[in-house]
Amino acid sequence: MAIKPLGKRVLVKKLDPEEKKSAGGIVLPDSAKSEKVVRAEVVAVGTDEKLEVKVGDQIIISDSFSNTEVIEGEEKYLLVKESEILAIVE
Amino acid sequence: MAIKPLGKRVLVKKLDPEEKKSAGGIVLPDSAKSEKVVRAEVVAVGTDEKLEVKVGDQIIISDSFSNTEVIEGEEKYLLVKESEILAIVE
Amino acid sequence: MAIKPLGKRVLVKKLDPEEKKSAGGIVLPDSAKSEKVVRAEVVAVGTDEKLEVKVGDQIIISDSFSNTEVIEGEEKYLLVKESEILAIVE
Amino acid sequence: MAIKPLGKRVLVKKLDPEEKKSAGGIVLPDSAKSEKVVRAEVVAVGTDEKLEVKVGDQIIISDSFSNTEVIEGEEKYLLVKESEILAIVE
Amino acid sequence: MAIKPLGKRVLVKKLDPEEKKSAGGIVLPDSAKSEKVVRAEVVAVGTDEKLEVKVGDQIIISDSFSNTEVIEGEEKYLLVKESEILAIVE
Amino acid sequence: MAIKPLGKRVLVKKLDPEEKKSAGGIVLPDSAKSEKVVRAEVVAVGTDEKLEVKVGDQIIISDSFSNTEVIEGEEKYLLVKESEILAIVE
Amino acid sequence: MAIKPLGKRVLVKKLDPEEKKSAGGIVLPDSAKSEKVVRAEVVAVGTDEKLEVKVGDQIIISDSFSNTEVIEGEEKYLLVKESEILAIVE
Repeated sequence: MAIKPLGKRVLVKKLDPEEKKSAGGIVLPDSAKSEKVVRAEVVAVGTDEKLEVKVGDQIIISDSFSNTEVIEGEEKYLLVKESEILAIVE
Repeated sequence: MAIKPLGKRVLVKKLDPEEKKSAGGIVLPDSAKSEKVVRAEVVAVGTDEKLEVKVGDQIIISDSFSNTEVIEGEEKYLLVKESEILAIVE
Repeated sequence: MAIKPLGKRVLVKKLDPEEKKSAGGIVLPDSAKSEKVVRAEVVAVGTDEKLEVKVGDQIIISDSFSNTEVIEGEEKYLLVKESEILAIVE
Repeated sequence: MAIKPLGKRVLVKKLDPEEKKSAGGIVLPDSAKSEKVVRAEVVAVGTDEKLEVKVGDQIIISDSFSNTEVIEGEEKYLLVKESEILAIVE
Repeated sequence: MAIKPLGKRVLVKKLDPEEKKSAGGIVLPDSAKSEKVVRAEVVAVGTDEKLEVKVGDQIIISDSFSNTEVIEGEEKYLLVKESEILAIVE
Repeated sequence: MAIKPLGKRVLVKKLDPEEKKSAGGIVLPDSAKSEKVVRAEVVAVGTDEKLEVKVGDQIIISDSFSNTEVIEGEEKYLLVKESEILAIVE
Repeated sequence: MAIKPLGKRVLVKKLDPEEKKSAGGIVLPDSAKSEKVVRAEVVAVGTDEKLEVKVGDQIIISDSFSNTEVIEGEEKYLLVKESEILAIVE
C-alpha cells in the first residue's frame, strides 16, 4: 500500500453488505436513535505506536464526516481516526 | 461473542421491562426532569484495563445518542462508552 | 442497597420539606438569581476512592438535569455526580 | 455553623450597604461595563486545603448565578465557588 | 491599600489621557480591527507567586468586561486578571 | 527556501492534477460525505522536533481554511499545521 | 523600546507593501479560501523564555482581531501573541 497514515489514523476498506453478513452474521442497522456505523477492514496503520488495531482486522467504525475517501487504482479506501473505531469483529 | 469493543467501550444487551422488574425490583421512570436511562447486561468489555464493569454485570446506562446498535444473529446489542454507565445493580 | 454507583457518582434520597426543616433548621429558598438546590441523604457511594461524602451524610445538591431518578420498591432515589454536591449539613 | 462546603466552595454572608461603607470605605459601583460584585464575609470554608480565604475574611465576590442561597434560622448565606472570589478586603 | 487581590488578579488604577501621553509618548488608538486597550498603574498584586508585574508598574490592559470597578474613598480602581495585561511600559 | 515555518507548521507546494495521478495512481475524489483533501509536497518543516514529515515527502492534507497561501517568485506555497496532514504517500 | 510585552506576546512593526516585495520577493495574497496574513518585523519580545523569534526577525503573522495596535511617537506597532506567528522569513 502506497499510503502511510500519520499518527492515530488508519487506512481502511469498507466491506460491502454481502461480505458484512458473512463475517460472523453481524448486522449494523441504521437507526435514528444512534450513530451510523459501517464495517471495514484495516489496510494500513498510522505512525502512533499505541494503535489497538492491526492490518487485516475487521472493524466497526463511525460513518463520520472526518473520514476521508482515497482512491488507488480501482479500489476505494477511507482514512479514519482511531477514535472513530468502535470495535474489532473477531 | 465475536465483537471486541475498543478502549473504554462495552457491548451490552438491553434488559426488557419484564426482566427489569424482576432484577431487584428496580424501576427507571421516564422523567422530563432527568436524563433517560435503561437497564442492560454487559456482554463484552473493551481493551482498556481500568474498566469498572465485567461480563455479566447488570448495569444502568444513559440512553445516549452515542450508543450504537449492533445485531448478531437474532440478538440486538449496544456498543456503549463507559462514561454512559451510571451504576451496577448488584 | 442493590445499586452500586460507578466512579464519582452517589445514590441519594431526597429529604421531604418536613424533614428539611427539622435538620438544623436550614431552608433552601427558590430564587431566580441562583441555581435550584435540594436537600438529600447519601444512600450509596461510587467506586472512586476520593469521594468526600459517606453513606448517611445529609447533603445539599444542585437540582441538575444530569441527576437520574431510580425507583426501588416504594422508594425514589437519585443518581448524582459528586460535582453536583455543594455542601454537607452536619 | 451546620453547613460544611465541599471542595473549593465557601459559605459567606453578604454585607449590607451600611456595613459595606464602614469597612474601609470601599464602594462597589454597578456598571454596565463590568461584572457585578458584592461584599461578603466568610462563614465556613470548603474541604480543599488550598483555599486562600479563612473564616472571618471580608471578601469581594462576583454576583454569579452559580452562587446558591441557603437560609439557616434568621440568617441568609451564599454557597460560593472560590473562583468567584476576587479579593480580600484587609 | 485595603484590597488584596486573590490568585492571578491585580488591582490597578487607570491613567487619564493626559498622563497617558506624557508616559513615554505612547498612544493606544481605538480601532475596529483590534481589541480595545487602556493604560493603567499596578496598585496591588494577587497571591499567586508567578505574577509578572509588581506594584508601580505602568501597564497596558484589555478593556475587558471581566475587569471589575472598585471605589475606595475618592479613587476608582479596577480588579484585573493577569491574562488581560498585554505589556509593561518601561 | 526563505520561509522557515514555526512550531508544528510545514510549508508545502500543492501538486497539480497531472502530477497527482502519476504519483502512485492515487485519486482524492471530492465528496459531500467527507472532508476535502489535496496532494502536496513538503518544502520546509517547522521548528518542532517531533514533526513526522520531512522535506520532499508527498502528503495528503485537509483543504483547511487554516492553510495560508504564500507566493515566492513564481511559486505558490501553503503554510499548513501538522494536524492537517492525514498521510504520507510513499 | 519602552514597551515590554508580557508572556508569549511580541511587539512588531508591520512592513509596508514596498518593503514586503523586496524582502525575498515573497507575496502574501488575499484569499477567500485562507486566513489573512501580514508581514512584520519583531521589535520587542515577551517575558516567556521559550519564544521562537528574536528582535529583528522578519515574520508572517495572522491579521488577527487579538492583535492590538500601539502608537509610540510617529510609529505604529502591534502587540501579537506568539500563536499568531506562522513563519520566519530568513
